[in-house]
Amino acid sequence: MLNIRLATDSDRDAIWDIFHDVVATADTYVFAPNTSREEALAYWFREDTHTYVAEQVPGKLTASPTGQLQDRSASAALRRDEHVVGSYVLRSNRPGLGAHVSNASFIVAKSARGLGVGRAMGEHCLSEARRLGFRAMQFNFVVSTNESAVHLWQQLGFKIVGTLPGAFRHFQKGYVDVYVMFRSLVD
Amino acid sequence: MLNIRLATDSDRDAIWDIFHDVVATADTYVFAPNTSREEALAYWFREDTHTYVAEQVPGKLTASPTGQLQDRSASAALRRDEHVVGSYVLRSNRPGLGAHVSNASFIVAKSARGLGVGRAMGEHCLSEARRLGFRAMQFNFVVSTNESAVHLWQQLGFKIVGTLPGAFRHFQKGYVDVYVMFRSLVD
Repeated sequence: MLNIRLATDSDRDAIWDIFHDVVATADTYVFAPNTSREEALAYWFREDTHTYVAEQVPGKLTASPTGQLQDRSASAALRRDEHVVGSYVLRSNRPGLGAHVSNASFIVAKSARGLGVGRAMGEHCLSEARRLGFRAMQFNFVVSTNESAVHLWQQLGFKIVGTLPGAFRHFQKGYVDVYVMFRSLVD
Repeated sequence: MLNIRLATDSDRDAIWDIFHDVVATADTYVFAPNTSREEALAYWFREDTHTYVAEQVPGKLTASPTGQLQDRSASAALRRDEHVVGSYVLRSNRPGLGAHVSNASFIVAKSARGLGVGRAMGEHCLSEARRLGFRAMQFNFVVSTNESAVHLWQQLGFKIVGTLPGAFRHFQKGYVDVYVMFRSLVD
């Protein structure tokens, strides 16, 4: 089960581990692979920013295949799995007269890819942005070759509203296009 | 005559006066009309930023209509006109793997509108960006109703590569679209 909640200072180590893994590949995120822990966490916990984590938590005690309830040692094993598998930040995309449009960034642990963590955080984020009164959400920098991200955001209602030619230096593919994606949060 | 040069600390007062005038109208710039001097100058002189000013300087001594050279008191009057009429900032639009794309912002004094100050700074800025090795220039937030700006940037080779629906809260027109404009600096 996934639990999404506001991050605390005790999540900083876990967030840095995930952040570092994500930028190390130099194929999806604008931050350089050698971004320091200090820079990364300063950005992720910026004063104007709401920071969330997604943590995997053990499900309820269920009957085992043999019909017995799981014992304490099995629960203990499950508790060891209780850890942060993703994080996102939500903020105004611009100050002042552009502050009604939100912006968000997402990171998912390598070990938790393909399990719907990004989608769950995306849905949570849209709901939080609405709750906070934002009128729209904008992603400024979706690398066009990061197809799974583009596809996920389209499924969550985002449209590509702009294309920045060669704006990302991909470690393997060289300069590739970047999309600006946008989604209204009002009717 | 217009002279464009790097800004110094002694230009801060002049820049703040222009900045404040520009944002006061709430029709072109994302900064709120009540942006403080401190916030404005922190943004304009950010560590990662090249800051320039355009100053009006007296032309060479020329013959007056009566055929006499202008006298010293006339020169003194001209020297009183030697002042900052505009400013611009140039920086990387993104960190790391997006740092090859530059970003710039421009402000022109109310008293100097329509005199080509914006165009002169724009051309200077493109030349500086090339000199600094940037591969492109991107404007993230050109308010669509600011037609003279849109037109000027198009004349200087920028294209509208994205439209952000209702991303600017115009003091009079309500939520209006914003353009993302882009220009390559390489062949």
